[in-house]
Amino acid sequence: MSSHEDDTTLQLDRAHVFHSWSAQAHLSPMAIAGGSGSHVWDESGRRYLDLSSQLVNTNIGHQHPKVVAAIQEQAAVLTTIAPATANRTRGEAAERILAHAPDGFSKIFFTNAGADANENAIRMARLHTGRDKVVSAYRSYHGNTGAAVVATGDWRRLPNEYARGHLHVFGPYLYRTEFWASTPEEECERALHHLERILQVEGPDTVAAILLETIPGTAGVLVPPPGYLPGVRALADRYGIVLILDEVMAGFGRTGAWLALDHYDVRPDLVTFAKGVNSGYVPAGGVMISEPIAKSFDDRVFPGGLTYSGHPLAMAAIVATLDAMTEEKVVENAAAIGTDVLGPGLAAIAERNALVGEVRGLGVFWAVELVADQESRTPVSPAIMGRIKAGMLARDVLPFVADNRVHVVPPCIVTPDEAALGLEVLGTVLDEVAAAL
Amino acid sequence: MSSHEDDTTLQLDRAHVFHSWSAQAHLSPMAIAGGSGSHVWDESGRRYLDLSSQLVNTNIGHQHPKVVAAIQEQAAVLTTIAPATANRTRGEAAERILAHAPDGFSKIFFTNAGADANENAIRMARLHTGRDKVVSAYRSYHGNTGAAVVATGDWRRLPNEYARGHLHVFGPYLYRTEFWASTPEEECERALHHLERILQVEGPDTVAAILLETIPGTAGVLVPPPGYLPGVRALADRYGIVLILDEVMAGFGRTGAWLALDHYDVRPDLVTFAKGVNSGYVPAGGVMISEPIAKSFDDRVFPGGLTYSGHPLAMAAIVATLDAMTEEKVVENAAAIGTDVLGPGLAAIAERNALVGEVRGLGVFWAVELVADQESRTPVSPAIMGRIKAGMLARDVLPFVADNRVHVVPPCIVTPDEAALGLEVLGTVLDEVAAAL
Ligand SMILES: Cc1ncc(COP(=O)(O)O)c(C=O)c1O
Ligand SMILES: Cc1ncc(COP(=O)(O)O)c(C=O)c1O
Repeated sequence: MSSHEDDTTLQLDRAHVFHSWSAQAHLSPMAIAGGSGSHVWDESGRRYLDLSSQLVNTNIGHQHPKVVAAIQEQAAVLTTIAPATANRTRGEAAERILAHAPDGFSKIFFTNAGADANENAIRMARLHTGRDKVVSAYRSYHGNTGAAVVATGDWRRLPNEYARGHLHVFGPYLYRTEFWASTPEEECERALHHLERILQVEGPDTVAAILLETIPGTAGVLVPPPGYLPGVRALADRYGIVLILDEVMAGFGRTGAWLALDHYDVRPDLVTFAKGVNSGYVPAGGVMISEPIAKSFDDRVFPGGLTYSGHPLAMAAIVATLDAMTEEKVVENAAAIGTDVLGPGLAAIAERNALVGEVRGLGVFWAVELVADQESRTPVSPAIMGRIKAGMLARDVLPFVADNRVHVVPPCIVTPDEAALGLEVLGTVLDEVAAAL
Repeated sequence: MSSHEDDTTLQLDRAHVFHSWSAQAHLSPMAIAGGSGSHVWDESGRRYLDLSSQLVNTNIGHQHPKVVAAIQEQAAVLTTIAPATANRTRGEAAERILAHAPDGFSKIFFTNAGADANENAIRMARLHTGRDKVVSAYRSYHGNTGAAVVATGDWRRLPNEYARGHLHVFGPYLYRTEFWASTPEEECERALHHLERILQVEGPDTVAAILLETIPGTAGVLVPPPGYLPGVRALADRYGIVLILDEVMAGFGRTGAWLALDHYDVRPDLVTFAKGVNSGYVPAGGVMISEPIAKSFDDRVFPGGLTYSGHPLAMAAIVATLDAMTEEKVVENAAAIGTDVLGPGLAAIAERNALVGEVRGLGVFWAVELVADQESRTPVSPAIMGRIKAGMLARDVLPFVADNRVHVVPPCIVTPDEAALGLEVLGTVLDEVAAAL
């Protein structure tokens, strides 16, 4: 496309589009025109290797032909229908998702995205238990609506605190321990002790739910030690609390397993999902519901709902995405990329580069945490992060940058060569920035 | 399709799909397989005239070929992209929508649906004013998420009251006046007096927003008298309050105008939309933002956002829907159907049938309110509503039933003959039910 086209897109955008989480006068968005697999390109035709999966959602890569075809076919048959009807594609999507749910899960409530999935999971937990408090983590993001944004722990909660009944705890994060711990085991044990103490002093029988990202994502890919989630499950059992795991970012292949919770010996009561379930090709999310909570609404009205619950076009994208992921062993690929390329490659960068404080992750879900000083672990400045981002873009690689971290989160279909190229660019840029300091 | 297919759909649904606003063990959903124009059909091939537009969203009718084609074409190019990018289709959708916005509106914030549109409008109003209270109507529905469901006035709010800062007022509804009024003028004046008194005693400078459906929809198509919304605007101006009009159901053709607010001498500060903007073919909603509120976030971060804000597939459906509605004079058709067919036809039914307490509406947005007794205006029982619904379905017409009302809300593309047929069936069923009492 000509550069004239590019101008029109930017002009329309700057004139009329109000953007998420931004000061509107300070934006210079890229005009992306298309994508394929691990790449996107802008309107001038310049291609970028996408190490971000956009907002960590295009797990199956951009424009997967089978998912595109399924959307086109469903569009020709029936785009939309009221949620009160039965719909074949919706039933098939629910069945496909439940095949990856933990044992004892029986139903799916479909929503439009991650935020309303969490809203409805919280609603179910409150009505199921007859309690109202919700405990979540300070280092978390759960969405931008009323309850979801106050369950969120990060700065995005602060201007939005209009929901009641939310409290927050610190989770395990040894690199910046809140518990004066020095080993993963100690961090795990102390984080559980902290959680139990909060439950006790808040009154455990006032707590409806513990809501945690299985692996906190935007907060920094904070892979919990193996004992943490089983320990949380034991506390939830002890006090009759519903355990909700938010798999919106971590689920559906991202960690090299169908769900991130598959890496742990834990069975939650509710699981929320969105993003990877259909790679966001059509907006969709939902709640996987275990049998006792589903039954809780057999004879009592569930007081939640939405016009596009189980939207046929979104459902068709789910069915096609999950089928293609199975046939093409996309989850296995994500696991192998983590073990064979990203894990060792990032370790090598960390080894040689003084900016890298810690590297964490698994599958295609990694964070590189950058520090001004290895001793104090002071985060690098936003200016340095800006230079890193610009350096990677200049080399045709799209990074996901959050605070003092680069998240390496390519699509799950990324090839070993693409992943290696992404690491080479990241390493080169980090070396250059380190050398210039 | 064979009845075997039908069984599979129902079995999958009953086993695995959790439904909105329902007791899950008490459902017998219809298995809808396809649709076209004003009709849908089930898996056995039985066709129904759709007087519901599903959840009053398929304004352009089912499976409009141009919108289907636009979705298919966009799917082939780019289904999804992060909201931080600029995207041509998104800019075009914003431009198209703003062409129908009141003067002085400059930007669109895109969401996934109606609930999160209202969430974000409330957020903008609170941050713009630095105040926190939100006043809405007892007779209203605004969505199922944290703030939207507590802004809602009806029973759906009650099990969900976890948001703070919400209060409710009665709007004008002469047939069941809360103000001992006997004329529309008196009802209007007293409803405004009631609103102003509530603002005064709550402290007008604590109120961020007045949030109203331009014409309350699910609550009963409560068409306000001409002076009400201008009067609300004057109160909002007097006290520095943001006026948000929710056009999720009433907007984009439903009333025979592009926006329902076009029927009134009122300019709101924010308008929320979803449903009719693309007939729900792809989930989408949003907020139209007037210049002063948009500017309020030029240099300050707007603390709201979502993964699928401005989703390309949803945007392509918006562009194609609005273009087709313009070219095919769909809004004009809705107006004519209201004036020529539904208005007089419903008046005739009301005239002859003792069950009909009141008929209200305009365009393709009508409610028929049914009473056991014309004097006391006692609503008919749920059992009678069940018989009416069953009677219409038996005659291949899909009604929208809410409380003691049948809403006559066909697609805006409904033909005079289809509308007349729908009325004939409604009239016959009402006559039969009345005769059997
Ligand atoms: C863990 C988690 N939960 C919920 C959400 C919210 O999802 P959405 O933006 O689709 O509402 C996100 C989005 O990034 C997320 O990462
Ligand atoms: C006036 C109004 N506002 C908001 C909503 C919520 O929209 P959604 O179901 O898309 O969240 C509705 C849905 O019926 C509505 O009628």
